[in-house]
Amino acid sequence: KVNGRRLWDSLMTMAKIGATAKGGVCRLALTDLDRQGRDVIVGWAKEAGCTVSVDQMGNVFMRRAGRHGEAAPVMTGSHADSQPTGGRFDGIYGVLGGLEVIRTLNDHRIETEHPVEAVIWTNEEGSRFAPAMVASGVFAGVFTLEYGLSRKDIEGKTIGEELQRIGYAGEIPCGGRPIHAAFELHIEQGPILEAERKTIGVVTDAQGQRWYEVVLTGQEAHAGPTPMPRRRDALLGAARVVDLVNRIGFAHAPLACATVGMMQVHPNSRNVIPGRVFFTVDFRHPDDAVLAQMDAELRQGVADIAGGIGLETALEQIFYYAPVAFDRACVESVRRATQRFGYSHRDMVSGAGHDACYLAQVAPTSMVFVPCVDGISHNEIEDATPEWIEAGANVLLHAMLERACE
Amino acid sequence: KVNGRRLWDSLMTMAKIGATAKGGVCRLALTDLDRQGRDVIVGWAKEAGCTVSVDQMGNVFMRRAGRHGEAAPVMTGSHADSQPTGGRFDGIYGVLGGLEVIRTLNDHRIETEHPVEAVIWTNEEGSRFAPAMVASGVFAGVFTLEYGLSRKDIEGKTIGEELQRIGYAGEIPCGGRPIHAAFELHIEQGPILEAERKTIGVVTDAQGQRWYEVVLTGQEAHAGPTPMPRRRDALLGAARVVDLVNRIGFAHAPLACATVGMMQVHPNSRNVIPGRVFFTVDFRHPDDAVLAQMDAELRQGVADIAGGIGLETALEQIFYYAPVAFDRACVESVRRATQRFGYSHRDMVSGAGHDACYLAQVAPTSMVFVPCVDGISHNEIEDATPEWIEAGANVLLHAMLERACE
Ligand SMILES: NC(=O)NCCC(=O)O
Ligand SMILES: NC(=O)NCCC(=O)O
Repeated sequence: KVNGRRLWDSLMTMAKIGATAKGGVCRLALTDLDRQGRDVIVGWAKEAGCTVSVDQMGNVFMRRAGRHGEAAPVMTGSHADSQPTGGRFDGIYGVLGGLEVIRTLNDHRIETEHPVEAVIWTNEEGSRFAPAMVASGVFAGVFTLEYGLSRKDIEGKTIGEELQRIGYAGEIPCGGRPIHAAFELHIEQGPILEAERKTIGVVTDAQGQRWYEVVLTGQEAHAGPTPMPRRRDALLGAARVVDLVNRIGFAHAPLACATVGMMQVHPNSRNVIPGRVFFTVDFRHPDDAVLAQMDAELRQGVADIAGGIGLETALEQIFYYAPVAFDRACVESVRRATQRFGYSHRDMVSGAGHDACYLAQVAPTSMVFVPCVDGISHNEIEDATPEWIEAGANVLLHAMLERACE
Repeated sequence: KVNGRRLWDSLMTMAKIGATAKGGVCRLALTDLDRQGRDVIVGWAKEAGCTVSVDQMGNVFMRRAGRHGEAAPVMTGSHADSQPTGGRFDGIYGVLGGLEVIRTLNDHRIETEHPVEAVIWTNEEGSRFAPAMVASGVFAGVFTLEYGLSRKDIEGKTIGEELQRIGYAGEIPCGGRPIHAAFELHIEQGPILEAERKTIGVVTDAQGQRWYEVVLTGQEAHAGPTPMPRRRDALLGAARVVDLVNRIGFAHAPLACATVGMMQVHPNSRNVIPGRVFFTVDFRHPDDAVLAQMDAELRQGVADIAGGIGLETALEQIFYYAPVAFDRACVESVRRATQRFGYSHRDMVSGAGHDACYLAQVAPTSMVFVPCVDGISHNEIEDATPEWIEAGANVLLHAMLERACE
């Protein structure tokens, strides 16, 4: 069993780095706060006897040696960055859960055949730099290193520059090495486990995602003397697309999700008809064919809406991954570990993307979920109980142990 | 006749202060660029022999003495601030048109009974600081001085602080003195004059306006694992209100205008369901009763939309003025001056708000419009021909002369 108290205390220590007034965390990727957080975790890993290395995407690997120096590691990890108004568990729970596994192995002086690695993946949230999971994506060979390093934030700063600035631009190549098995521990970020009073989610799949950037261009004009029929109002078009996106989500219920999360209006002045609007679309579905159908509906709908009011359209899909089926053997390891403790559980499909989704392309991988209060995540009020937190880490420990001792 | 070339050159000199890449101007109220612009104009006024004074709202009065030291002035003026992506004529044309009148009177050594004053009104656009025309509003006693000085920009800086910073916080009281007559020269900012090939608009009325600030609050949540029916998406609500505002505009066609110009989404992250959206609404109509009807439709519609998806609503009307009927005698002065030159013309209702709309509450006032290309304003491509610019200033000269020699 892990030391639940120690894990909780570590989580609460990390929650102070970027703490917000409403009890959440704002620790955007590659900011000074992200560096502070990384430094603390790396310090703990070294105290636990780990060898720490950083790759070219700034991913941090904290390794506990195995009996066979050459054997491929059993890996676990998640991210230490947060949303602008994020919670105290999203991501960081998976990183510190991995560290807790290592600390527990140390406590019990357990030797494993395979090395055990806990990882901090860079910029998982996709909030400061789009897309999400970009660094695990480079690790998995889905994106090139060049692509990863050149992603820009809203001010035009790149991941590469910001890694240099905070001192986490490592030298070792990103990816390209064998991994024996991988697991990621995470809060569910949705309402299902809590509603069904289950402690553990055995994650079998993750839904597919498509992210878009849309720019609608009309013509700026004066809000007063410009008659309604002469207007080419980019915000009117964007508003109709927001409603369309919502309708597409409901049309493919109950499994589809469809969201416009970000919008920038230009010139954003009260008495100017907006001439240009930028916004994003986020589509999700566990069935790739439905996702393709949603894509077609979006493209047709945007063209119709824009055409109807004289707007020009630029629509780009900037991020896509197909639904992921996690490795059957890894899923079974998680299930066995869960049953060992007698935790209530159910199989589930991840609604969020996770670094594990990319890792699954280059390693046998699966995930462990625990509930979060009211299913709320990406919100400062995100919460979880110490019991859930401990249970998830116990499952992670035993799933990893099983594979590390093969 | 005015010196059209000199007026054009002055306009082009001012257009360099805050010039944008697309040929427009960004000279937001009370920025360093606004100060630069004011300094240049004040310099020209002093060269033209004017006495310059600044009031507590930073309004600048450039006075050419009349024969009777005690007589109330004939006033003209407009604003020197611009929209973020504004044009080279909006506002500044009325200020420099007034200066050109003074220069022309000097050229011909014409003495007037009444003093003649050209005015720069502070923060007319309402873009950096809402509401629009706030300083002429204080001058007219519509707003208190305290209200005017405490208006804040998006960073929380007040008009009072910014006036101090740029050195235009004057000492003399704002308003409260007699004005014999007032005129404002402006581009139409709409398509009517150009479409009908008329050179001069004799402005008889201005439509009424209501401005609102709306905040819709839902709940931030993760765009991936949060099922559609559980969402309280503030941007979905805002989008539906944007469409509603447009429908209200069309429902009261052809005279109504209805615009959402500004929107801010929180937390504005691609994979977060927006928890809070702030936006503005701008309603206009020449009939106050219709404006009241539009107000009722907005309130009911916002309540229905928000209620339907579980959002909280805060809706505040932050700015209102009733339709303005300009002074009949001043309108006739403009008409006579127009006829004197044989310019094609028509009566019209101003679609935009102008400082003259507030001034009309404390002085006999009217306005002169000239066309602008394609009716486009509040846009960097805003344009006008030198012929129109000269014609408008000729009309202003003679309307003012008539009243200044009474
Ligand atoms: N787990 C998580 O919040 N990931 C961010 C990427 C996504 O939006 O799915
Ligand atoms: N003339 C002008 O653009 N005024 C700004 C106030 C308004 O929106 O009517």
